[in-house]
Amino acid sequence: MSRGGVGLVAAQRMAFDTPLELRSGGVLNHYDLVYETYGTLNADASNAILICHALSGHHHVAGHTDPDNIEKTLGWWDNIVGPGRPLDTDRFFIVGVNNIGGCHGSTGPKSLNPTNGKPWGADFPLVAVVDWVHAQARLADRLGIRQWAAVMGGSLGGMQALRWTITYPERIRHALVIAAAPNLTAENIAFNDVARQAIITDPDFHAGHYYEYDTHPWRGLRLARMLGHITYLAEDQMAEKFGRKRRAGAGSYGFDVEFEIESYLHYQGDKFAGWFDANTYLLMTRALDYFDPARVAGGDLAAALAVAQAKFLVVSFTTDWRFSPERSREIVNALMKYKHDVSYAEITSPHGHDAFLMDDAHYHAVVAAYLRNIEL
Amino acid sequence: MSRGGVGLVAAQRMAFDTPLELRSGGVLNHYDLVYETYGTLNADASNAILICHALSGHHHVAGHTDPDNIEKTLGWWDNIVGPGRPLDTDRFFIVGVNNIGGCHGSTGPKSLNPTNGKPWGADFPLVAVVDWVHAQARLADRLGIRQWAAVMGGSLGGMQALRWTITYPERIRHALVIAAAPNLTAENIAFNDVARQAIITDPDFHAGHYYEYDTHPWRGLRLARMLGHITYLAEDQMAEKFGRKRRAGAGSYGFDVEFEIESYLHYQGDKFAGWFDANTYLLMTRALDYFDPARVAGGDLAAALAVAQAKFLVVSFTTDWRFSPERSREIVNALMKYKHDVSYAEITSPHGHDAFLMDDAHYHAVVAAYLRNIEL
Repeated sequence: MSRGGVGLVAAQRMAFDTPLELRSGGVLNHYDLVYETYGTLNADASNAILICHALSGHHHVAGHTDPDNIEKTLGWWDNIVGPGRPLDTDRFFIVGVNNIGGCHGSTGPKSLNPTNGKPWGADFPLVAVVDWVHAQARLADRLGIRQWAAVMGGSLGGMQALRWTITYPERIRHALVIAAAPNLTAENIAFNDVARQAIITDPDFHAGHYYEYDTHPWRGLRLARMLGHITYLAEDQMAEKFGRKRRAGAGSYGFDVEFEIESYLHYQGDKFAGWFDANTYLLMTRALDYFDPARVAGGDLAAALAVAQAKFLVVSFTTDWRFSPERSREIVNALMKYKHDVSYAEITSPHGHDAFLMDDAHYHAVVAAYLRNIEL
Repeated sequence: MSRGGVGLVAAQRMAFDTPLELRSGGVLNHYDLVYETYGTLNADASNAILICHALSGHHHVAGHTDPDNIEKTLGWWDNIVGPGRPLDTDRFFIVGVNNIGGCHGSTGPKSLNPTNGKPWGADFPLVAVVDWVHAQARLADRLGIRQWAAVMGGSLGGMQALRWTITYPERIRHALVIAAAPNLTAENIAFNDVARQAIITDPDFHAGHYYEYDTHPWRGLRLARMLGHITYLAEDQMAEKFGRKRRAGAGSYGFDVEFEIESYLHYQGDKFAGWFDANTYLLMTRALDYFDPARVAGGDLAAALAVAQAKFLVVSFTTDWRFSPERSREIVNALMKYKHDVSYAEITSPHGHDAFLMDDAHYHAVVAAYLRNIEL
């Protein structure tokens, strides 16, 4: 990166008192959204970009939150947001938001249930992608943003961008749908199911009310994350990085860590289980499972997307086997059927699904060029 | 199948008192092997075929064990063994054996440790593929079989067949290596690692001594099997069979079973956890991880296989992503380098890794033709 990022940032909180009716039938009468912004909203509020997060993401997209600990407190997509970066904060006003059901400050399973004053836990209503979009629209209202210049996200975040074009077609000029899919395959759901079952059958889950027992189903969450990591990485990348390399001191022929790949997965699993909330993990994976905008159109994605007015940039990565290029092309083909304006880039990358988070020159150049051409 | 199978069968048991030194450094002073045989050994014992089992297999390969419950007690590879079937019991004498460390009668973690009279549990020594081959060779000695007409297996069973050609080159005339690989990739090991961690971190694992607590880490074993099933099936097959189909009564937007694929995985996981032993699962997956016959030759598989005298049939399946055709071709190419006699068939099948167990006409015809040409 040729220039610095957005520097020190701080989260903001906004309270909402208009009931939010959820796809699941539940209602949230009050909820908070935690968000961050970077750059300056222009006079006619035409330069705002919303960044939607994926399974384990949150509102802290860019910059750092601790000047004494910059590297460790950088946002999860810092490499793409900042002055002179593809999401150029000299030009755009960027909004990152923690979705409802999350565990980073917005109302979620860890929040107190107003009916009994205890954490919601498993009683928190299931949230769908469209619910997040509605909540994000209300945040936009309060920020004075009638129409987003763009909504952008990777993976589950890309699904939110796609949903925006259907639910609020007049409020989004561009959708950047990165490493996403129009719905999950049976195999995708199967991996999510194993992850959820690991959490739900952990004795420390306590039917989702573990907060009251002052515990956390860390075993299950750790397994879920380990499994997730396998699907985020490309097989060849894993082979190159870890191969069959033994750990120093290995060779005991036992069940301790013997191979480097095991050490990596345990580290990732332990770290994640230490900071993420298990109920949020359940809820986010279920939102993924249910996402299927074509369903109301009898499975016809082109028909479901017919109402969209936005222009699209769809990006996939060659070695992504979680949401493969084939799945992105389904979106592109559906959009082309009714002559939507869609650009598509298939980026050669060794990094599997995780590629969407990487500082890849070609990928970033594609995003930068697309956004540079947006008229404000 | 045009004709019936081998009919009612019964397992036999053989006790061994010559210490077996294991790759891990452990020693088994006494051990039992449980096995079955089908067909008749000819006068010069030249018609014997050994079938090696995979992760969850055992000695009961063919026929049934309960005349009142034939379908439910059929052997796991019954479709390929019997009079007129590819492994023709009118011609061959077939031996199925439960490997050491197994949970179907041969000495394993459930057996009593002679030093303290309690089940071995986690103290059972780790067993490598080569140890199984040595034990199988001793069984052959006792059965009067100096040289196998063939050793055959799928998956981990195929690895045993491959190992036979290196360890006892003069005792095997043909190796049938089906849906196997010369070693595990980092991704293969990663999936095994998640499965093992699910078992080991289950509170009912009790450091591998759960027998003494009259319990079993069924949660972990269930997760391990669910995950295994994802890797045994092909993605397209899963999409075709389950897709995004909801269960009858689904639509509750919750964490209960909503999709057919979840129902399938839970059923498979529950069933397996009810009959398989968790310590055996750990041990078998570790044997897979460690298998790497090329290692002693500095990673040169061709060099490692140079000593082989057997002829080879290598079979892979197009949609197998656990041990893909590419991995089988590594074996074929290594064999061709030093002019070994090798036939290779890449079978078009929708059934992923599980294809090796299926009654596929082309696949069975290839195996039948190969075996028909074996001179006795």
